[in-house]
Amino acid sequence: MKTDIEIAQGIALQPIANIAAALGIPAPALIPYGHYKAKVQYTEIDEAKVAQSKLILVTAITPTKAGIGKTTVGVALAQGLQQLGKKAIVALREPSLGPCFGMKGGACGGGYAQVVPMEDINLHFTGDFHAITSANNMIAALLDNYQYQHRGTELALKQITWRRVLDVNDRSLRFIVSGLNGPGNGIPQETGFDITPASEIMAIFCLASSLDDLRRRIDNILLGYTHHNQPFTVADLGVGGAITVLLKDALNPNLVQTLEAGPAFIHGGPFANIAHGCNSIMATKMAMTYGDYVITEAGFGADLGAEKFLNIKCRQAGIYPKASVLVATSQALKLHGNVTLADIKKPNLKGLQAGLKNLERHLENLQHFGQSVVVTFNQYSFDTAEEMDYTAQWCREKGADFALNNGFAEGGRGALPLAEKVVEVIEKRPSQPIRHTYALEDSIPEKIHKVVTQIYRGKEVVFSKTAETALKKIETLGLAHLPVCIAKTQYSFSDDAAHIGVASDFTLNIENVIINRGAGFIVAVAGEIMRMPGLPKDPQALHIDVVDGKVVGLS
Amino acid sequence: MKTDIEIAQGIALQPIANIAAALGIPAPALIPYGHYKAKVQYTEIDEAKVAQSKLILVTAITPTKAGIGKTTVGVALAQGLQQLGKKAIVALREPSLGPCFGMKGGACGGGYAQVVPMEDINLHFTGDFHAITSANNMIAALLDNYQYQHRGTELALKQITWRRVLDVNDRSLRFIVSGLNGPGNGIPQETGFDITPASEIMAIFCLASSLDDLRRRIDNILLGYTHHNQPFTVADLGVGGAITVLLKDALNPNLVQTLEAGPAFIHGGPFANIAHGCNSIMATKMAMTYGDYVITEAGFGADLGAEKFLNIKCRQAGIYPKASVLVATSQALKLHGNVTLADIKKPNLKGLQAGLKNLERHLENLQHFGQSVVVTFNQYSFDTAEEMDYTAQWCREKGADFALNNGFAEGGRGALPLAEKVVEVIEKRPSQPIRHTYALEDSIPEKIHKVVTQIYRGKEVVFSKTAETALKKIETLGLAHLPVCIAKTQYSFSDDAAHIGVASDFTLNIENVIINRGAGFIVAVAGEIMRMPGLPKDPQALHIDVVDGKVVGLS
Repeated sequence: MKTDIEIAQGIALQPIANIAAALGIPAPALIPYGHYKAKVQYTEIDEAKVAQSKLILVTAITPTKAGIGKTTVGVALAQGLQQLGKKAIVALREPSLGPCFGMKGGACGGGYAQVVPMEDINLHFTGDFHAITSANNMIAALLDNYQYQHRGTELALKQITWRRVLDVNDRSLRFIVSGLNGPGNGIPQETGFDITPASEIMAIFCLASSLDDLRRRIDNILLGYTHHNQPFTVADLGVGGAITVLLKDALNPNLVQTLEAGPAFIHGGPFANIAHGCNSIMATKMAMTYGDYVITEAGFGADLGAEKFLNIKCRQAGIYPKASVLVATSQALKLHGNVTLADIKKPNLKGLQAGLKNLERHLENLQHFGQSVVVTFNQYSFDTAEEMDYTAQWCREKGADFALNNGFAEGGRGALPLAEKVVEVIEKRPSQPIRHTYALEDSIPEKIHKVVTQIYRGKEVVFSKTAETALKKIETLGLAHLPVCIAKTQYSFSDDAAHIGVASDFTLNIENVIINRGAGFIVAVAGEIMRMPGLPKDPQALHIDVVDGKVVGLS
Repeated sequence: MKTDIEIAQGIALQPIANIAAALGIPAPALIPYGHYKAKVQYTEIDEAKVAQSKLILVTAITPTKAGIGKTTVGVALAQGLQQLGKKAIVALREPSLGPCFGMKGGACGGGYAQVVPMEDINLHFTGDFHAITSANNMIAALLDNYQYQHRGTELALKQITWRRVLDVNDRSLRFIVSGLNGPGNGIPQETGFDITPASEIMAIFCLASSLDDLRRRIDNILLGYTHHNQPFTVADLGVGGAITVLLKDALNPNLVQTLEAGPAFIHGGPFANIAHGCNSIMATKMAMTYGDYVITEAGFGADLGAEKFLNIKCRQAGIYPKASVLVATSQALKLHGNVTLADIKKPNLKGLQAGLKNLERHLENLQHFGQSVVVTFNQYSFDTAEEMDYTAQWCREKGADFALNNGFAEGGRGALPLAEKVVEVIEKRPSQPIRHTYALEDSIPEKIHKVVTQIYRGKEVVFSKTAETALKKIETLGLAHLPVCIAKTQYSFSDDAAHIGVASDFTLNIENVIINRGAGFIVAVAGEIMRMPGLPKDPQALHIDVVDGKVVGLS
């Protein structure tokens, strides 16, 4: 069996100019980055065409630590739709360097369903993450300089809430004291670094609708509080223009291709807990401008990813998916059916049946949003016909469609049944406009309560004292109209990662509430959420190399 | 008077593919980054052509805080040579984002002698600095992870010498304590960040002769010492391959153009104190492959820049300049003639005459290296004919050529006298092969002593206890054969920045000696050398913006 990178390197790529020309992208709007990557000027987005395009959300049941394979399914579905003669484009998130060199690996799909050139996409790509890192840290340096230049005066801030970021897994940087070694070297301060996908700049970048909107959001970022407890923003610091300049090129979506030479837009990559977990609105709308079918994904399981996609991203962008694909794996189902981790790759119909309750709840949630759902398997070689048949039958009984998908092993051909089913569903019984879980007019605690009770199915929300204080501040600042982004473990409906299957009637503890005024949402943090991962004992970096001019060890 | 950025934006650029085609660069070797920037595969370097090309070094007298304008002169000279019908290419360093958003500004030249697109070059360009930052910090994360995974065992290191970098002016990061907040978040440690141009990766990048050589140098980087005082390198950490992968694309030199549509290679940008201060060897050799005349520069005054260029870079690369251009300004000469800073823009022949001693010493030093020298003025509107005539006459008496240069105001046309003179010198009396200041076989203290006495004209070198210890370690490690890179203030021949003009018979104090085993040189630090600048009260970031889609405020 070939590795992902061997498969990717074994296929001759089309020049990106050809991919763009086939879509009808005007040549002057195409900004090449090498021969196989390009940016497309965001001004090419055409809202009239966006309104005509059929958006498809790929989401998943509660994942295992290895993930479910949404990206693989999304790419396979795009390849399958193209094999059916449809103008289909996939829109995905950009990978982060941290996990690539750590444990999780890249984010280009797998097997015969990948976006390429996968080495480039998984490494520096077109520099978007670097631009975001620079912008984030330039704000930090300018802010600390402001403090330094105004030290001892009333202009100095009382509290700084802005942190720095790096796109690397570096646990040593989570908590630091900066500004040491005496006067002249800044002001001592407890602070730290998050990973770049956790930067508010990343969230802003992915929600911005234009360069002006990007600027407005950057100016709005809350950096801390003055001596008189007033909010202090990037606009107050006076550097919104400079930070926008650092992001202006990155803002244009990136065009690459699938292994079957279909178009793919890969742009932005925010975390799916602390942020909303979807590629940029610009990439989605650019894909919708040029594609009749646009496949996109949202991070983690549907409780986190789809909820935020529908309540935050789609609400803001004024779009909604005509169908949702809910991805399951036999392994995850068995895990939720209490099969031990060591045994989840073995045939076990009973274990799988017991785990269907997790799938059922995600299905109900999506249907409650108004989504027409097609359940699919991200197939593995050890899946049995019995298991798949049972799941298919079970889905039909629940009013959902089911289609097989063997895209990893077979590429688009393996996803043809899924592609056909999705086309049929969109034609015959497309989703309804989104029934949002909460109204923007609801108070922040109400919004959180509605997500917790209706989506997670907990019975109550308890706010810590810190969170209560923050909630009051939000009222004072007049920001209660913002949507909420709940940062919770991806492994359970509850805030307890060990509680797999379907947690119910639990209490969700909100430890902290963070104001992302630039991004335009309020983050409610349930439990300990890692914003800077660490490296494992055997990091992938030990296996990455250049051999005969080719990169090895990326996955 | 138009600003630099207004001039740059007012000129229609040639597609970079045209610039490359005119040079004879094969199309498949050209990797576009947008329409006006490209990388050229380093494998196109042809040593036979390099040997035929005429290299010209642009260096300077001891600068003022505003600099001397070597880049402006270098670009103007290239433009002038092109107007003479010569195939001339300029090879320069890449700017750092820190100073661009701080005080010093960009590094693309000025007036009508600039490389363009200056906004792109001054911002993210083709991502080289970001790749270097990533590589540096990935090593730091992997190293701290090694310490963390082996904590409490004999495998844990006793001392870590590697620091992190960011391409930003951020004084608060100079001295930090990382790994705080208890077990699970790394091991508490005193450390800090330098600016990216001060990274050893940057020096390595600029001295590497191939991808394999890059890999070898990265593997050689000394990161710290084991429990048994043995050196611990990137090879010991096992991540040389992964770090090389992060740099492999960046390694290809960047092609852009001058304001007069001539070719320019801009690649790498190491500090000129803590490192050797020149663009990459690859860029110089790429320019020499395609150009009959190649103009390059070395950071700060000739005591720092030219010395390192000749003793480190040229020695390693096996090249030498056929002529050196020594740049002076009337302002700097007057400053060295003890005219007060406030008055250096006013006509003052006597002040200028008194400052010629600084020019004289740099001239002598260059001639001692075997260089044929053309002295030039980076002309300003307030320079008087009397001042320039006097300097010209003075130069002739010292056996050096002199030519006027008004490239800032007039572009290549203003540099025609200089270009003609340089061509004449190279034809009639080219430089001799380099007479190096020291032999590689000399001990490290001998090498330092020779530079200090012969170039700086001090009388002795005193090593601190820390430096003495490091010198012993160098002997033990068998690294005494490496060249030395002295990190000293750029404002004086001595280690005292206030001592302008010509310091003599001083004692130079070496506070510390740093082993850059990957770069392949030993850094001797004289006095306090800033490796992470701070921001001023009124940082340039406050004036940078996007207005009607155009960047303003970069210089």
